[in-house]
Amino acid sequence: MKNVEHIGIAVEELEAAERLFSSLLNAQPYKRETVASEGVLTSFFQVNQTKIELLQSTDPEGVIARFIEKKGEGVHHVAFEVDDIVLEMERLKKEGFALLSETPKPGADNKLVCFLHPKTTNGMLIELCQEIKP
Amino acid sequence: MKNVEHIGIAVEELEAAERLFSSLLNAQPYKRETVASEGVLTSFFQVNQTKIELLQSTDPEGVIARFIEKKGEGVHHVAFEVDDIVLEMERLKKEGFALLSETPKPGADNKLVCFLHPKTTNGMLIELCQEIKP
Repeated sequence: MKNVEHIGIAVEELEAAERLFSSLLNAQPYKRETVASEGVLTSFFQVNQTKIELLQSTDPEGVIARFIEKKGEGVHHVAFEVDDIVLEMERLKKEGFALLSETPKPGADNKLVCFLHPKTTNGMLIELCQEIKP
Repeated sequence: MKNVEHIGIAVEELEAAERLFSSLLNAQPYKRETVASEGVLTSFFQVNQTKIELLQSTDPEGVIARFIEKKGEGVHHVAFEVDDIVLEMERLKKEGFALLSETPKPGADNKLVCFLHPKTTNGMLIELCQEIKP
């Protein structure tokens, strides 16, 4: 794993959370992006080499809505940047980690992503991500 | 905020978690440290400019033991590095954040630290930390 690429935070209401994190981080969000396939509206802050990704559900039955219902607002996942996501998925599968998809999927921020099941990672939802090269 | 200095992860059993994160991160922990005042035994991994800090309670009534009892293992806090923790605490107090201590306290890894109450930070426990200079 090369870098903590981002920390994903489940929030009820994006605008209010953007104001809160602007004030906390003393910085402004630099972009918003909808990921229709995941039912989320996202907003990004940059802190050195790591992004803070706020996640608001656009679907009352979506993963973020269900997460907040169960656990409340807070850290939803931690994403690690990798050089080659397919190789890394193979390595982790051999090590006994449960992957949530067999192949990488397109995620926010021009990335290919794959999640690991929290049951094999000490309760943490972990994302692998690799920049999509042009 | 300068950098995501570390992500603190509450674990039941440090040795098992060290094996799991070694395999996940494809790296070895570089040190263990006991923070008696907090009732925790910690273990650190380095991923680029961010550390992964595993936290095992040494006290059945300690903060980590209580966290796991309530929420299970997983992300406990996110720590941001700051240049001047006293100035940053003053700024955040003025912005309406609730600090868990009036003055910085010594933490693990040669740092002065202060936590923000999750009730003012979207449910996230946030730590500010500043390296103690010799």
